[in-house]
Amino acid sequence: MDRDKILLTPGPLTTTLRTKIAMLRDWGSWDADFNAVTARLRQSLLKIIHGEETHVVVPLQGSGTFSVEAAVATLVPKGGHVLVMDNGAYCKRAARLTTLMGRTCTVMGFDEAEQVSPAALDEKLGADKTITHVMLIHCETGAGVHNPLQAVADVCARHGKGLIVDAMSSFAALPIDAREVKFDALIAASGKCLEGVPGMGFVFIRKAILDGCAGQSQSLAMDLHDQYTYMEKTGQWRFTPPTHVVVALAEAVKQFEEEGGQPARLARYTKNYQTLIHGMARLGFMPFLDPSIQAPIIVTFHAPGDARYDFKSFYAAARSRGFILYPGKLTQVETFRVGCIGAIGSDEMEQAVQAVALALEDMGIASGEPAI
Amino acid sequence: MDRDKILLTPGPLTTTLRTKIAMLRDWGSWDADFNAVTARLRQSLLKIIHGEETHVVVPLQGSGTFSVEAAVATLVPKGGHVLVMDNGAYCKRAARLTTLMGRTCTVMGFDEAEQVSPAALDEKLGADKTITHVMLIHCETGAGVHNPLQAVADVCARHGKGLIVDAMSSFAALPIDAREVKFDALIAASGKCLEGVPGMGFVFIRKAILDGCAGQSQSLAMDLHDQYTYMEKTGQWRFTPPTHVVVALAEAVKQFEEEGGQPARLARYTKNYQTLIHGMARLGFMPFLDPSIQAPIIVTFHAPGDARYDFKSFYAAARSRGFILYPGKLTQVETFRVGCIGAIGSDEMEQAVQAVALALEDMGIASGEPAI
Repeated sequence: MDRDKILLTPGPLTTTLRTKIAMLRDWGSWDADFNAVTARLRQSLLKIIHGEETHVVVPLQGSGTFSVEAAVATLVPKGGHVLVMDNGAYCKRAARLTTLMGRTCTVMGFDEAEQVSPAALDEKLGADKTITHVMLIHCETGAGVHNPLQAVADVCARHGKGLIVDAMSSFAALPIDAREVKFDALIAASGKCLEGVPGMGFVFIRKAILDGCAGQSQSLAMDLHDQYTYMEKTGQWRFTPPTHVVVALAEAVKQFEEEGGQPARLARYTKNYQTLIHGMARLGFMPFLDPSIQAPIIVTFHAPGDARYDFKSFYAAARSRGFILYPGKLTQVETFRVGCIGAIGSDEMEQAVQAVALALEDMGIASGEPAI
Repeated sequence: MDRDKILLTPGPLTTTLRTKIAMLRDWGSWDADFNAVTARLRQSLLKIIHGEETHVVVPLQGSGTFSVEAAVATLVPKGGHVLVMDNGAYCKRAARLTTLMGRTCTVMGFDEAEQVSPAALDEKLGADKTITHVMLIHCETGAGVHNPLQAVADVCARHGKGLIVDAMSSFAALPIDAREVKFDALIAASGKCLEGVPGMGFVFIRKAILDGCAGQSQSLAMDLHDQYTYMEKTGQWRFTPPTHVVVALAEAVKQFEEEGGQPARLARYTKNYQTLIHGMARLGFMPFLDPSIQAPIIVTFHAPGDARYDFKSFYAAARSRGFILYPGKLTQVETFRVGCIGAIGSDEMEQAVQAVALALEDMGIASGEPAI
């Protein structure tokens, strides 16, 4: 039957029909009605991190990566030096975009199966005084590691360094309180745990550093200071906003608030995660990460050791039953990923596990147990 | 009544319900079904300009300006020199983003009420051999001027200069044939004359120059060469695509083809334009441009000379009757703009004229006649 597939991916993910139905209208991007949507959305976003006093939020067209690039371009001066704490693919991407735009960039490597180390950061910042900014991925979607945001922020604050946090896949699910965690910028996007559709990102910027950001970006489109200034003055986006994506996000945020905000969302995702983990364990699958550092966002599983396994067939077999899995992104080990986020609950996770069981059966594989 | 307003703007514009309904599904951005949508869309776009032999098309997340910036970043080497032919606000924006990214930029100014001059360009390119690229806005939305693309392209070809065309508001309405017009890049977006929703742009790049573009962009997100290479290899977008915007555009392109492609669309817009112009003339309004250089895309009108006129009240009065007008963007003269594009026909244009008539009545203004 032509039924929507459940997206078990780190985004785009499954959204509610209510969110999608919000896109059935056209909006004038210059009109007061649309400006009101933007203004309300920005207020709601600030509230999620309790950032009304300390931060502003600047929405930006494009995917989340556009907002990450924009944050670096806007915050880091041309002579700045960014230290990227790297335990996965998205960290490497952040380092690449920083280097490309001509900012000095040092990569501090960690194992992709482990959290980044605040102690190592402390030592590094003590040793290299030229570093101006630290970049952290809160939840490294490559493997799914929940990185220690608070501890990293504390180290940065002690050394007086700016902290840029990519909270793409954690925002609105994991707790982030701007009154406790000190950061200069924090980035997320519409199509992640807020359960909107993809097409825009947003960056929280600390008010105290905002003025100093003027004129730092070598990109016009990605200049968040310019975007902010224009938006404050006119209520409008500088360049054509993705109007339908914006109203869908506004509608998704309403549902987020109705559900009970971040604690309720985390509770649902945690239940999704537990349902998944237990079900997959019954089938013999082994998660890649130690549970203590696993965020309930996206779970990496070792591929089954059985020689009959290949990801393509496995994906197709689960897909034919209505579930879209996600490939692994690790370089050393064969894995696949399953997302716990989106407008789904433990029923869908149970069904997903069942689909995986039947996929194994299709392939003549008795157990998901890995080779190692 | 809560009825959708008609957007008489240069985009976002009124789209069909069929286009919007295409957004009622969620798509995995990694999934074969979505890759097929992207592939079909790219083929259809190339066909519109008859560019299958000579060009590739690279879609990009974000507003049209993101794609303009990406085209300059990707095509123009760091030591390049861009000449922007400037007869309006969008030309100035192109010059600004070129300068910001560190490319040498010369602006050749023309009156905003006139076309740019191919003869002046010819002279300039003869005099300054350091110029590597010329940038032209096909339809300058600031005033609505239809610039002489073919003649400019011929001059560029004769001098061996690269031509970058911003065809944002002309593409799919005005004829552009890549077999006859020689350009290195041509840029348009989803939310314009293809009548999709806003959220992505696309850039046609001449195959012959593609390889030379590798590594020129200092922006990762806006590197069209990298986007192209990845897409060719995997069928996927490099970073999360605005999936709902993409499927809406694919659906809009289907309707564009069913309508009869570019000639049919131009015919409808031309009829919209004529209905508008004649109706507004009856009310005393005077268009800003000479009709011979006016594109049937967006029309700038002089503001009425009556002292009781102000745009805000005028806008509100037309809006209350269901029509969203657009402010002027000229620096010297008071004007307003009315778009002829979107999923509307001459019926809507007649109704718009009637709304304008009633708006004048509300304001106690007898005629739209300008002061000058």
